[in-house]
Amino acid sequence: MSFFPEPLERLTDCFARLPGIGRKTAQRLAFHVLRQPCEEAEAFADAILEARNSIRCCNICQNLTDAEVCSVCRSPKRDPSTVCVVADPKDVLAIERAREYNGHYHVLHGVLSPMNRIGPDDLRIKELIGRVGGGGITEVIMATNPDTEGEATAMYISRLLKPMGVKVTRLAYGIPVGSNLEYADDATLFRAIEGRREM
Amino acid sequence: MSFFPEPLERLTDCFARLPGIGRKTAQRLAFHVLRQPCEEAEAFADAILEARNSIRCCNICQNLTDAEVCSVCRSPKRDPSTVCVVADPKDVLAIERAREYNGHYHVLHGVLSPMNRIGPDDLRIKELIGRVGGGGITEVIMATNPDTEGEATAMYISRLLKPMGVKVTRLAYGIPVGSNLEYADDATLFRAIEGRREM
Repeated sequence: MSFFPEPLERLTDCFARLPGIGRKTAQRLAFHVLRQPCEEAEAFADAILEARNSIRCCNICQNLTDAEVCSVCRSPKRDPSTVCVVADPKDVLAIERAREYNGHYHVLHGVLSPMNRIGPDDLRIKELIGRVGGGGITEVIMATNPDTEGEATAMYISRLLKPMGVKVTRLAYGIPVGSNLEYADDATLFRAIEGRREM
Repeated sequence: MSFFPEPLERLTDCFARLPGIGRKTAQRLAFHVLRQPCEEAEAFADAILEARNSIRCCNICQNLTDAEVCSVCRSPKRDPSTVCVVADPKDVLAIERAREYNGHYHVLHGVLSPMNRIGPDDLRIKELIGRVGGGGITEVIMATNPDTEGEATAMYISRLLKPMGVKVTRLAYGIPVGSNLEYADDATLFRAIEGRREM
């Protein structure tokens, strides 16, 4: 039983299909679109189509881009001998924010997850092996998340890469900057003590 | 500083402009659209344009519709002598859910709000006066929200309508069904006692 016109219902359905958006929020968003100026609604529809049609994976690092090769892989200022392996394009952004890393990336687009039937062939692992096999890469930094699946993925890939004579490193574990020792969990504290460095 | 391709940024901007959607959520939604099948993304873009272009206000009750006259005003089963005045199209849905009301509606599209510079001319009040002036309406139920602005709007409109010889009523105040007296606020309890009825 619906008392809203069908096009409004259809738009609400589309919003409700997005992650984390319930029926009620979807309705509020649909009403907002109705109240937007016509140009803004058109720009929204256009942005969806444009993003869907023009965005692809970089030929080299598999990060999202609207060109053949992404801006990081194209940049002459970045060091191509170091490759940072991440699970997701959003992780590239996180690492870039730290302003410490100046090498290239490799985006796996997921992690190994037997529970969800995601195996090595579902990730961009063979592309990484191909890059390392092509030469010119001296260090591969495994920057998958420090959880079970991220850990297993890092382990799996490092076992493939080590025989190729490349240095494989992992991001350091430890207490987060600005946090409180009192609230640090046991596993983190254990790793922080284990990985202690001379001052 | 952005490391995402421009079309993805543009889509994120569009999502971030929606109410209650922050930058981080907008990014998550934009990524979701990229992962959707192409048809689904196209259907989404289409739904936005379709809703924006086809939805208008009913000529009679000002509720949202995709026709000249909405389904409630068109229905021969509904009583046109009673008009329920609400602030927002969503309120129509709320009242329909109660399955008690069988009359027509009038949607004001807002409430009087001097703070936000919304005066009588910004609402669909003259359309309501026109409908009542046209005859055939015996009762107008003021169903604006029971807050200061809704109250003031109901009061303002009832003063305009009463001289026209129409019965003007207001939704009953009282304790909500299924609630707990212990947690009812003073104003609600006051109104509940004031409006008590014989059993």
